[in-house]
Amino acid sequence: MRCEVVAVGTELLLGQIVDTNSAWIGEQLALAGIDCHRHTAVGDNRERMLSVIRDALDRADVIIVTGGLGPTQDDITRDVVAEVMGVPMERDPAIVAEISSRFAGRDREMPATNLRQADIPIGARAIAEMPGTAPGLVCPIGDRILYAVPGVPWEMKVMLEGTVLPDLRRRAGAEEVIISRVLRTWGRSESSLAELLEEEIHRLDVEGGPTLAFLASGMEGLKIRITAKGTNQETVMNILKEEEALVRKIVGPIVFGVDEQSMESVILDELAGQGLTLGVAESLTGGMIGSRLTEVPGSSKTFLGSIVAYHPDIKHKILGLPEGPVVSREAALSMADGACRVLGADVSVAVTGVAGPEPLEDEIPGTVWMATKVDGISQASRVIFPFNRSQTRQFTVISVLDQLRHRLLDRRRT
Amino acid sequence: MRCEVVAVGTELLLGQIVDTNSAWIGEQLALAGIDCHRHTAVGDNRERMLSVIRDALDRADVIIVTGGLGPTQDDITRDVVAEVMGVPMERDPAIVAEISSRFAGRDREMPATNLRQADIPIGARAIAEMPGTAPGLVCPIGDRILYAVPGVPWEMKVMLEGTVLPDLRRRAGAEEVIISRVLRTWGRSESSLAELLEEEIHRLDVEGGPTLAFLASGMEGLKIRITAKGTNQETVMNILKEEEALVRKIVGPIVFGVDEQSMESVILDELAGQGLTLGVAESLTGGMIGSRLTEVPGSSKTFLGSIVAYHPDIKHKILGLPEGPVVSREAALSMADGACRVLGADVSVAVTGVAGPEPLEDEIPGTVWMATKVDGISQASRVIFPFNRSQTRQFTVISVLDQLRHRLLDRRRT
Repeated sequence: MRCEVVAVGTELLLGQIVDTNSAWIGEQLALAGIDCHRHTAVGDNRERMLSVIRDALDRADVIIVTGGLGPTQDDITRDVVAEVMGVPMERDPAIVAEISSRFAGRDREMPATNLRQADIPIGARAIAEMPGTAPGLVCPIGDRILYAVPGVPWEMKVMLEGTVLPDLRRRAGAEEVIISRVLRTWGRSESSLAELLEEEIHRLDVEGGPTLAFLASGMEGLKIRITAKGTNQETVMNILKEEEALVRKIVGPIVFGVDEQSMESVILDELAGQGLTLGVAESLTGGMIGSRLTEVPGSSKTFLGSIVAYHPDIKHKILGLPEGPVVSREAALSMADGACRVLGADVSVAVTGVAGPEPLEDEIPGTVWMATKVDGISQASRVIFPFNRSQTRQFTVISVLDQLRHRLLDRRRT
Repeated sequence: MRCEVVAVGTELLLGQIVDTNSAWIGEQLALAGIDCHRHTAVGDNRERMLSVIRDALDRADVIIVTGGLGPTQDDITRDVVAEVMGVPMERDPAIVAEISSRFAGRDREMPATNLRQADIPIGARAIAEMPGTAPGLVCPIGDRILYAVPGVPWEMKVMLEGTVLPDLRRRAGAEEVIISRVLRTWGRSESSLAELLEEEIHRLDVEGGPTLAFLASGMEGLKIRITAKGTNQETVMNILKEEEALVRKIVGPIVFGVDEQSMESVILDELAGQGLTLGVAESLTGGMIGSRLTEVPGSSKTFLGSIVAYHPDIKHKILGLPEGPVVSREAALSMADGACRVLGADVSVAVTGVAGPEPLEDEIPGTVWMATKVDGISQASRVIFPFNRSQTRQFTVISVLDQLRHRLLDRRRT
């Protein structure tokens, strides 16, 4: 079974947004063992959309179209698909009711244009999941099938996972299973990881087996992706398990998580496991450490709060820093102490530094002092990141949390 | 002159990397007034690359191909282009020398495969800029032209800016200039904005003129993009200016910024202009308000800090909330008071609510109380967002900052 992905939207061609949907869909298709030979982006233009979709139907069994399902005049995917199918559209009363109820729930009046979204080409059916107000469509076209889903990434994902991918797997029958596992690491550069794993990659090349790839992902860590193929899920999971053990043996404790486990979720789990609460004191990150921790549902069990002491006065007044420079070992240690004391936390992390672009207290941008406090003992270290403001802040977040992770692991062992 | 962009690389189809090149190139072409009707991504496969490139040459005058110029066996763009041109390749001694000198300079031995990069289809010429070891190519094909540039973004950009775009502008002669301006809004849904602007959009359709489009961008606001064409920059800027004034008149003060101005930068500028400092007290956002504000360089002039009071104890102990529910009008008002008092700030924003997925104090997920304090007067309001955890947090950030914005605008007027 061959698939193509078509992304609709003039804003994609104009580069006003980057098409992340096609990459995500490509990844899901690969995991489902379905070949995808082409991604195409086309503008909100009837003639050109017709031509792109018809060409794709000539080559592929399945087309996934994203975008152009919204309520406004430039959203014409429904109309174009109906034209390709050679059928008129019909307003679906169930969808009218559904859209109306969404607006009623939000206590907002529904603009009449939203009802255009309830128009469905005859012969197509609406996708059951409808996270926004745009219904997705399943459209049989001869022996081909076209799925139309919204361009809004989270709406698209809900429909892909709920309907499109299960449907495709059913149609594809028993194909090859391809599964990846991601080991997330922190503390080594991509090239040094590649060097560490050079022999293993060579062995896999020669003997055949899973493949290893690296992906630098900022605050999400440096990822090692292991991808394996096989005739069924069990076989593939066993290959992945063995290879994961080999890789972990080679790279050691820099692996902090697997797949979707972020550094934050790992820290929160470890704290919960040890029955500890966490407090934060942050300066250059401005709240990002707390923000990232609280992205994780259930973080309120262990994370108490953060003192974002951006102005030096707040550092002195609330966290009790002694007079003196605020980008220093003493400042970081004192902030970690202050976070535990003021927030009543068992352990803490603290950061202070120069995000840039301007220097501060004669320290160059990228200079960051990080501290952790565990069992009453505070430790601090300095890093000078060779990055821009945004990267410096992000790398500070994951670096200080990784320092806490190592201390918590040591604590558990002893 | 019509252009298409072709991105080559199996990793794009598999979603291992997101194709940011096509978006960037699309933006540059739009700025140069060159129409781009299609982006296509294809894998490192001879047959499929031939088909994609030949199809594109049927439709467009210019093709820009990115990727597949590296030294390894799967980099076959050179070979495929030679086949499309119907010519053999010839090793270019100048490029051999250039590549060798790069390796000599880096004190590294050159793998023999790197010399493949010096093979040029006869009739093509190498692009002068060569930031990496992969030369780019300018390939005349009949009356069409194909540019092949590397997939590494910074190498691609150097070649586009140095050779491809100047070359295209020269070929295009005096073509149109296309410029967009984005008005960022908050406070109305996409469909209600579309309804407000329906008449204006209709007028522009009938009379000709700039186009309007909408783009929901989460925490970045709901964007109205005005795009205008003309023979030179000055004309286009005047059209944009006039249309911006018309749109602002219709939609009113929901426009908070233009182009790259975020809600945070607007708030910080307004505070600086009025000589006010800002303090924050946040619960469900966990630090995101502070984090977003401090993304803006220079935010330390007005933003003092944030008390991230995630655990109820911190709300009572540090911010001085009275006993009682923490998701309530009283709690939000008391947090806004606390932020001003504890941080010594002139004005403050505060949020408390239920990010989900679990309810809290019998309030459903999405329930958020927001408060602002300006000139000693605190105001609070409640919203129930019909979104998931992450969206609820993001929409809370922009919503409470927008409330502060309106109060600051009122303050400036009186």
